[in-house]
Amino acid sequence: MPIYNAPVEEMMFLFDHLKDNKNYKEIDKYKEINSDLVKDILQQAAKINQELILPLAKIGDEKPCVYENGIVRSPPGYKEAYKKFIEDGWTSLSCDPKYGGQGMPKTVSTFFEEMLSSSSLSFKLYSELSIGAYNCILHHADEQIKNKYLPKIVEGKWSGTMCLTESHCGTDLGLLKSKAVKQKDNSYKLTGQKIFITSGDHDLTENIIHLVLARVPGSPSGTKGISLFLVPKFVVKDNGSIGPKNGVNTGSIETKMGIKGSPTCVLNFENATGYMIGPENKGLSSMFTMMNLERIVVGIQGLGISETAYQNALSYAKERKQGKANNSNNKDADLIIKHADIRRSLMNMKSLIEGQRSLAFWVSQQIDVSLNHSNSTIKKNANDMVSMMTPLIKSFFTDIGMEITNDAIQVFGGYGYTKDQGVEQLFRDNRITPIYEGTNSVQAIDLVFRKILNNNIYNNYISQISKEIQDYEKNEELALFVQKFQKYVELINNFTSWLIEKNKNSKDDVSAACNDYLKVLGYLGLAHSWLKILKVSYEKYDTNKSFFEDKINTATYYFDKILPRAQSHYLSAITGSKSMMKANFN
Amino acid sequence: MPIYNAPVEEMMFLFDHLKDNKNYKEIDKYKEINSDLVKDILQQAAKINQELILPLAKIGDEKPCVYENGIVRSPPGYKEAYKKFIEDGWTSLSCDPKYGGQGMPKTVSTFFEEMLSSSSLSFKLYSELSIGAYNCILHHADEQIKNKYLPKIVEGKWSGTMCLTESHCGTDLGLLKSKAVKQKDNSYKLTGQKIFITSGDHDLTENIIHLVLARVPGSPSGTKGISLFLVPKFVVKDNGSIGPKNGVNTGSIETKMGIKGSPTCVLNFENATGYMIGPENKGLSSMFTMMNLERIVVGIQGLGISETAYQNALSYAKERKQGKANNSNNKDADLIIKHADIRRSLMNMKSLIEGQRSLAFWVSQQIDVSLNHSNSTIKKNANDMVSMMTPLIKSFFTDIGMEITNDAIQVFGGYGYTKDQGVEQLFRDNRITPIYEGTNSVQAIDLVFRKILNNNIYNNYISQISKEIQDYEKNEELALFVQKFQKYVELINNFTSWLIEKNKNSKDDVSAACNDYLKVLGYLGLAHSWLKILKVSYEKYDTNKSFFEDKINTATYYFDKILPRAQSHYLSAITGSKSMMKANFN
Repeated sequence: MPIYNAPVEEMMFLFDHLKDNKNYKEIDKYKEINSDLVKDILQQAAKINQELILPLAKIGDEKPCVYENGIVRSPPGYKEAYKKFIEDGWTSLSCDPKYGGQGMPKTVSTFFEEMLSSSSLSFKLYSELSIGAYNCILHHADEQIKNKYLPKIVEGKWSGTMCLTESHCGTDLGLLKSKAVKQKDNSYKLTGQKIFITSGDHDLTENIIHLVLARVPGSPSGTKGISLFLVPKFVVKDNGSIGPKNGVNTGSIETKMGIKGSPTCVLNFENATGYMIGPENKGLSSMFTMMNLERIVVGIQGLGISETAYQNALSYAKERKQGKANNSNNKDADLIIKHADIRRSLMNMKSLIEGQRSLAFWVSQQIDVSLNHSNSTIKKNANDMVSMMTPLIKSFFTDIGMEITNDAIQVFGGYGYTKDQGVEQLFRDNRITPIYEGTNSVQAIDLVFRKILNNNIYNNYISQISKEIQDYEKNEELALFVQKFQKYVELINNFTSWLIEKNKNSKDDVSAACNDYLKVLGYLGLAHSWLKILKVSYEKYDTNKSFFEDKINTATYYFDKILPRAQSHYLSAITGSKSMMKANFN
Repeated sequence: MPIYNAPVEEMMFLFDHLKDNKNYKEIDKYKEINSDLVKDILQQAAKINQELILPLAKIGDEKPCVYENGIVRSPPGYKEAYKKFIEDGWTSLSCDPKYGGQGMPKTVSTFFEEMLSSSSLSFKLYSELSIGAYNCILHHADEQIKNKYLPKIVEGKWSGTMCLTESHCGTDLGLLKSKAVKQKDNSYKLTGQKIFITSGDHDLTENIIHLVLARVPGSPSGTKGISLFLVPKFVVKDNGSIGPKNGVNTGSIETKMGIKGSPTCVLNFENATGYMIGPENKGLSSMFTMMNLERIVVGIQGLGISETAYQNALSYAKERKQGKANNSNNKDADLIIKHADIRRSLMNMKSLIEGQRSLAFWVSQQIDVSLNHSNSTIKKNANDMVSMMTPLIKSFFTDIGMEITNDAIQVFGGYGYTKDQGVEQLFRDNRITPIYEGTNSVQAIDLVFRKILNNNIYNNYISQISKEIQDYEKNEELALFVQKFQKYVELINNFTSWLIEKNKNSKDDVSAACNDYLKVLGYLGLAHSWLKILKVSYEKYDTNKSFFEDKINTATYYFDKILPRAQSHYLSAITGSKSMMKANFN
């Protein structure tokens, strides 16, 4: 079984030293979320993740969910663990106290999301979509529905799903066919089939609240005729108690490469009772409240799984002896961690993971500002940053997750390929993350066409980070990093200008460049995060020499070894799309 | 189940137009291997692979090998398929007619290796190590042993294994502990445990011939005290018939991420009768005859699996409709193959695969020359090229295999993550290839320290390709490619000079750069292969316009989009190893 020790010290370093967003500090309700409180929460979170949840990963892989007689059963031990999980209040962490939540900011709950992802992605998914459903209902439903459904969801007694995909449409929701017909009592009857529904059915909660996209009769075709409905597995009576089974049936569950402890369901809606959420035909935009925050969480999944992969590779490298290291005086074989190439692989992981965690923390502050600040301009600006960073975090972190889990297997050699070590499971589990909640290609297209090309978000971002690092040059050592960084800012400025130019007359060039652009922005975003860490490290150096020495060293590695990747992406992208569009693929 | 159509036309293109090695053409015994004969062989090979072997892949994944009561059973249908496979003579393809082989050159048998890898890697592995054992016995055993064992191995009635790894040593064979004690009759008794033995036991053949590394008493420690032994599963009587069971027992088989149809065994040798092959204490060098050719075959596995992944992604892209392509006049959704980003992904695969196949063909000619030419200097030179290309093909092709199978899953979206499509199996099956027969990191170290730094191989290679492309500039269009190519030759020359310089005083810098160097040489090698294809394409353009147009277009893509990757590897590598060596990894 893999080991996992929650990186509480790393997280507290961010919370204590990189909560540097002035606007975040102005949010009234978070002023009392202090370091001691957060540390206490993270330590409790570490405990439940390491002790209770981590073992569920292997169990779920070896004894996957079972579908029998129309019913889905979760793997052994999941039910008991979930009971403890909700008793301890973990589903309510970031929810509104009005509905029983603990009201923690994203800066804190994101750390918890990471720990859960590190421990067992399959187990996490049972409650993850509940938070999505919670957000969607909170922002778009009327008071009656909120009061009826939210407390149970917050408590974790009921869970939630997002029902978008149909067999002929995943990425392109404009094609969806599910129907909703209005009834006399203003409820709807839904009919249609949804596929790939995570936690679509299971035995952990008393009820499951499906959020379903469907069309009402006479609605416009395409994405403009889609409405959003709340469809419970069991109809909920007016007094809030559970009523009869609704017309939602599980057709089958998928046999998958990974996350086998999480049921991926085909759901058949047959005259199922539902309630419209938000305005008619505006369902897609309501759903995207849920989707956007969820996409960032998927990125965090990639980060969490990467952390576990790194910890296990590191631990193995410290116990396995093989070959002689350069300049070794050892008579016998050396630990493989002495070998330069193994160290390179571990430093790749470490510098990417710590950079990502820091970037995610920066984005978490932006999310908190975008949701809670009193000034609407500030909210809007923060929201712009979040909307730009959403596809980036989703894609970049999950792709890097594939790289890191792949490299971790390699550190284990032949043992990494066997099931005993658990490291190959991380690789398989992570493989869904570049796909679900919108494939990474779709994210890249969203980033470039909707965020970079359509407004001033990009300029705001660049001017914000440029302003931020203005005074960094005062420190001589930091100045060297800033100079390197500015070379890459110039590169992405050139890349962006190229996109703007090409977007006028050769859109295919732009489409073909989206993935490369996302990568370049990702590597730049991580470099920015490392600069911030460096600044603190030089300032606080004397307070914790070994900790900050390590940060400076890892940042150096990142700037030397990882950041140059941006060059190839840029050089490749700006050759355009002619040959690929010309190909006939016979 | 995945589709697969053997790319016979592509292979025949190489055989007809790129058999351009003057020395190869001088090999007497291959002068009669003409185009018609090869085409006939490849068409038959295509038939057996597509019809008989391809279905075995999924069967092996769903019903893996079973270990019960000390016995290993292969998946359903494997026995019957193997019977047909050897009846049709496929195990004997490249073997010496003296022992019943068909005497085909590597230029031909490598195509067959690719097809088998494309169809079912698990099934392939049952006979693959037999060829390794064949080569090892052929080159190092005495006449008596050759006559006794080779005909049955060539016929496929007996199979072979390579027993190197022990639980504490994979990469570092100097640590191995298995013992061999000489008996009065000059045979040996072997004792020890070997792990990760591919096809170590199974029920497809009458006997299994293990080639085992072990130490005789009093031998020097480390790699200088290792000898090689032939240890049959059943002792073979003097008349060649099968005698009593030898002291070789299967302890268990591994539960693996992929290649589940191939048994990976723990073998316990307990006073097993064996016969020394080659000189005492020179076992490692004898074994490497087998290992080196085997490593190239592992690279071909990566290529073969990539081809299947590409074909399936392409086929899906031609039937799945989703979203509107740029400039589309379609009312409904377009096929995803119309989208630039999907085309980019497919062209990545196509340009890498066709480049790799061409590079492998070039290396096959070198192997044939190195083994068969009458002039010893020419043989030696060809052998140098092969020894440089061996780690490159092994690592580069298998890493690219991970990239391509990963991207193929992505083209399928959510469907790619389910078991139904079979594409995720390609990804899992391929994941062993960067590990076995020496991890890719070890290959990179071998390439740099033993091949690039230790002699003139690199200079010969560069001068050979430079001479070759001298007259390419006569064609104006080709000249543009040559100019780009020369920029990258300059880059790798700089990189090589840097290695030579650093090797004097900072070996860690060199060790840390090996992986990047291998990648750069790989991308350059493919560019060289594309140049050769381009030359033919311009010369023969009018004879088959659409075919050569496609080649020119794919080459353009490769030079524009893929080759720039070399830049980042170079920029990253030459920053040295300071930060990674300094890291304390607490």
